Amino acid sequence: MKEGVTELIASSAADAVSLAEVSGQVAQNLLTVNNVWMMVATFLVFIMHLGFAGVEAGFGQSKNTVNILFKNTLTPLIGILTYYVIGFNLMYPGDFMLGEWFGFAGFFLSLPEGGEGLAYVEGGYTYWTDFLFQAMFAATAATIVSGAVAERIKINAYLIFTVIFVGLVYPFVGSWKWGAGWLDSLGFYDFAGSTLVHSVGGWGALAGIMIIGPRLGKYVGGKIIDKPGSSVPLATMGVFLLWFGWFGFNGGSVLSADPGTVSRVLVTTSLAASMGGIGGYITGWLVFKRLDLGMVLNGILAGLVGITAGADVISPGWSLLVGLVAGVLVVLSAITLDKFKLDDVVGAVSVHLTCGIWGTLAVGIFSPEFSLFTQLIGVIAIGAVSFLSALSIFKILDIVIGLRVSEQHETEGLDSHEHGIRGYTIILE
Amino acid sequence: MKEGVTELIASSAADAVSLAEVSGQVAQNLLTVNNVWMMVATFLVFIMHLGFAGVEAGFGQSKNTVNILFKNTLTPLIGILTYYVIGFNLMYPGDFMLGEWFGFAGFFLSLPEGGEGLAYVEGGYTYWTDFLFQAMFAATAATIVSGAVAERIKINAYLIFTVIFVGLVYPFVGSWKWGAGWLDSLGFYDFAGSTLVHSVGGWGALAGIMIIGPRLGKYVGGKIIDKPGSSVPLATMGVFLLWFGWFGFNGGSVLSADPGTVSRVLVTTSLAASMGGIGGYITGWLVFKRLDLGMVLNGILAGLVGITAGADVISPGWSLLVGLVAGVLVVLSAITLDKFKLDDVVGAVSVHLTCGIWGTLAVGIFSPEFSLFTQLIGVIAIGAVSFLSALSIFKILDIVIGLRVSEQHETEGLDSHEHGIRGYTIILE
Amino acid sequence: MKEGVTELIASSAADAVSLAEVSGQVAQNLLTVNNVWMMVATFLVFIMHLGFAGVEAGFGQSKNTVNILFKNTLTPLIGILTYYVIGFNLMYPGDFMLGEWFGFAGFFLSLPEGGEGLAYVEGGYTYWTDFLFQAMFAATAATIVSGAVAERIKINAYLIFTVIFVGLVYPFVGSWKWGAGWLDSLGFYDFAGSTLVHSVGGWGALAGIMIIGPRLGKYVGGKIIDKPGSSVPLATMGVFLLWFGWFGFNGGSVLSADPGTVSRVLVTTSLAASMGGIGGYITGWLVFKRLDLGMVLNGILAGLVGITAGADVISPGWSLLVGLVAGVLVVLSAITLDKFKLDDVVGAVSVHLTCGIWGTLAVGIFSPEFSLFTQLIGVIAIGAVSFLSALSIFKILDIVIGLRVSEQHETEGLDSHEHGIRGYTIILE
Repeated sequence: MKEGVTELIASSAADAVSLAEVSGQVAQNLLTVNNVWMMVATFLVFIMHLGFAGVEAGFGQSKNTVNILFKNTLTPLIGILTYYVIGFNLMYPGDFMLGEWFGFAGFFLSLPEGGEGLAYVEGGYTYWTDFLFQAMFAATAATIVSGAVAERIKINAYLIFTVIFVGLVYPFVGSWKWGAGWLDSLGFYDFAGSTLVHSVGGWGALAGIMIIGPRLGKYVGGKIIDKPGSSVPLATMGVFLLWFGWFGFNGGSVLSADPGTVSRVLVTTSLAASMGGIGGYITGWLVFKRLDLGMVLNGILAGLVGITAGADVISPGWSLLVGLVAGVLVVLSAITLDKFKLDDVVGAVSVHLTCGIWGTLAVGIFSPEFSLFTQLIGVIAIGAVSFLSALSIFKILDIVIGLRVSEQHETEGLDSHEHGIRGYTIILE
Repeated sequence: MKEGVTELIASSAADAVSLAEVSGQVAQNLLTVNNVWMMVATFLVFIMHLGFAGVEAGFGQSKNTVNILFKNTLTPLIGILTYYVIGFNLMYPGDFMLGEWFGFAGFFLSLPEGGEGLAYVEGGYTYWTDFLFQAMFAATAATIVSGAVAERIKINAYLIFTVIFVGLVYPFVGSWKWGAGWLDSLGFYDFAGSTLVHSVGGWGALAGIMIIGPRLGKYVGGKIIDKPGSSVPLATMGVFLLWFGWFGFNGGSVLSADPGTVSRVLVTTSLAASMGGIGGYITGWLVFKRLDLGMVLNGILAGLVGITAGADVISPGWSLLVGLVAGVLVVLSAITLDKFKLDDVVGAVSVHLTCGIWGTLAVGIFSPEFSLFTQLIGVIAIGAVSFLSALSIFKILDIVIGLRVSEQHETEGLDSHEHGIRGYTIILE
Repeated sequence: MKEGVTELIASSAADAVSLAEVSGQVAQNLLTVNNVWMMVATFLVFIMHLGFAGVEAGFGQSKNTVNILFKNTLTPLIGILTYYVIGFNLMYPGDFMLGEWFGFAGFFLSLPEGGEGLAYVEGGYTYWTDFLFQAMFAATAATIVSGAVAERIKINAYLIFTVIFVGLVYPFVGSWKWGAGWLDSLGFYDFAGSTLVHSVGGWGALAGIMIIGPRLGKYVGGKIIDKPGSSVPLATMGVFLLWFGWFGFNGGSVLSADPGTVSRVLVTTSLAASMGGIGGYITGWLVFKRLDLGMVLNGILAGLVGITAGADVISPGWSLLVGLVAGVLVVLSAITLDKFKLDDVVGAVSVHLTCGIWGTLAVGIFSPEFSLFTQLIGVIAIGAVSFLSALSIFKILDIVIGLRVSEQHETEGLDSHEHGIRGYTIILE
């Protein structure tokens, strides 16, 4: 019996060692599954860039298709590279945050202690995944601008703007919230970026179309002249891919694979997108008396932008209303912009700025734990800096190198003059 | 020594607590990884809606492209919303199932006990994931109908049909099997929905084209007149995306990330798709004496539909035969429908109904544990209700608001008359 | 007290059993998450086939669109089926490897011991996942050839070539490294296949365009005549999807979900792709004096191919340079090929062969643990066998059934003659 006890104790001691090992492997498994989820989310946000390219090339005129695709192809490259060089360390300065207003952890990625940056973010995924997920986010802000100013902006002006806006402006204002800055301390809430990503891009887009002016022949004698897009299937594909990507944009913003939170976020996201489309459909029909596919598509995007700030704190039921209102707002906003002769090729300002503001305020309305007033402060503070920065950059570029292509190039199309190929060459016997 | 023993025992006692904790975390990890897998599957099924849009807009005529995309964009919205309001609780009534024939757990989603609905489904994923995955499924049934009746159906008639068919008919018959109803008790097997999804949609499509009649000028003087689709690349993209999405459709139907079962399902799915394409290729060549891409593409879809009922119980070897037969059947079915002047724009009835039946019966043929006779009962019971319901809804709609657009609109195209834009506007200098 | 101790010991004994169980479940969880990751990677590699289809149909002329899509649709089917019948067991012969040069584990898949093939590959994922992931890889080699020889090759010649090349040549040379053959023993390194996949395909493409000759009217009087592609949006979509798929191609080649390694691979992959695009942009501008989207797109692909051999061993910093050089090389290579009147419709040889070689050598340059000389041996050995095999197959096919379509078919387009439909039919009122 004594021996039996001793053996059992010895066995227990051996197990004690194993338990520590097992426990370590359990923590490692959680890290692994979180990281898998965050990588999937990263891929989904990446493919949003194809979504944006589809929407913009689809809604843009066929004589400028290659130009639009050129911009949209370079934008994620610039986003990733500037984020590697400077942006990531500017948006997430960590210990280098100074007085909650500005911080910079130095140029280039520098691996934190611990080899491969395992469990870099609490709860767990790797440093590399964090960088790549955030880099894919960063590029979306520039892409939003791209859609608004399309068909008349010089490519080098656009590229310089993008480098500055994505490399400096976006991470600077972003650090106020996601980098643990003063807006975060104030209690401002923006889950996945209705303000930090979408309205930042939207303010850039608004500044751009104000400085560059409308396309030639868009507003003639008090009338709005239609400029039909090259391919509605392409634009539709773009919207579906954006929704697809938004599962990663919002779902990944949970920053872990936590089952309850992530899957709930996917539901509110989908419900808001659906009601946004319905809102765009009904409003488009009431206003234009037609079955306006463009308004359904932009309504879906509006619903997605609208729920982005509060996808984890707004209930599924209220998310229906957030989406519906966004779908109505996007149509009214587009009409309003046209009244002011602000020519936005794809409706980027209406989708991302108007509904980005709406979504941020909606958090203060539908989530009792957040203050509408604080939400408003965040909208105004980030909006002011984003808009004035974009306005300044565009104005300086306009003076120094010129923002706009020549009248001849715009009229005849950018593709033949600047790219030497046409977007579509359909010759059949 | 005594102290040593006591310490060890104390340590063991402490470990005992830890072991319970570790064990709990292990269960939580399994829930997390299952949930990640089910979310990925959900995204994949979502993107099938872009696949359907591509197939239908690609194979439809260019004068109706916007109309087709309008229907295909609204369909998933309706699917998600009706499933939120009523469908989910009708298809999975749980304790509210009455006599195995009908059940309804009440309007709107209602979170089950336990906060976020964690581990709602045994083995584990969340309530939200379950809802969203099933909602994406539901919308596919309506999309199948959409492809068949395209180019001549009134948009409001289609939308009303979709709300009723997806919101009521699909979940009602579905509950007989997946809601633990009488077909489930009988031993009927339909893994991922050859019958419950595809043939339900296919019966709806058949009812639709019977009531609405062929497109003008499709059958003239005993001849079948080709109506060339607007874009073969778009249709091809659609089929690839459907296969891509089918990895989630079939893989997610395992309802966990169980490695052996899920990955085996992916293999049978891919083998059947491949042989389906080969079957369509060969049959298309024998019958039409040409390299018929449409038949290869529909052959792939046929193989996918065919293996869907038994992807987890049919061996990889037999899945080759199931796919090949489906690829042959889809061509013969298309020819037969044309003989009866049943005009199906994308071959939806042949792909989803014919091969849905074949796949369901194939379970009884190639899986010894299932009865062919029981499979046949399921096919007939669900077919009868789906077909008669769809026939009734379409007939009533035809009488009350009219199913069909005017002859002028059909001839000149739905896009210019109802949507005010054209699908493609390619103007090059 | 004694009882207390006994109880504790009894409890510890019970826990000891539980610990073994828990430990087993922990191992099972790791298998599950690894398998989920590998399945996601498989889907991503699958969708690369849509990417290739997009690039090839987009850059090919509109009169041959259906023909290109026909080839690209059949290629993955052939890849999956030949790999099921013979390829998998030829590339990974396991114990059947003879003298490190050749091995064959028998026809058809045969499940290894252990039921469902759980934990088949050490560290863990299933036999089925392994097969499917590798099958998706195999088909890419053939697809590369497809793009180069497009617009003039007979469909049956192409299909026979593909069956032999994917079914025999690709797995044979591949087994030298990934099947644990002599190149593996020698210390040759090719992480995800710059040589084993991309340059094998590239050599096949080069052999193909040498034997079949340029398209009619491509090189006239010392000039290179542009043959504009049908749709630049389609080609752009293809490149985005290829990058998207490459996350699985490279990320899945880690063969587990190991967080540190996989996420680091994704970063080097993205950085190289980005710099490749920049390299193509700058070189295209310097050489052609235009904003050449085709060169940006091929530059991205070049960067991806370039980093593929060393994505896990080259540092993020150096991966920028690897990508940039690839982006420059791809333009210079395209110019060189044209000098020799080697007509490559999509630039497949420049992207996959030139940059595949560069990437393989880059491992020897930027990773101190690998020998540049050994890398060169691998490039030459695999290149020699791939090129000579492809050359022989194409030559024999040319003699026996003829490689090339008739002059009339080529001039008027393959679609109307061989497929009976046109790629685009855009008729608007």
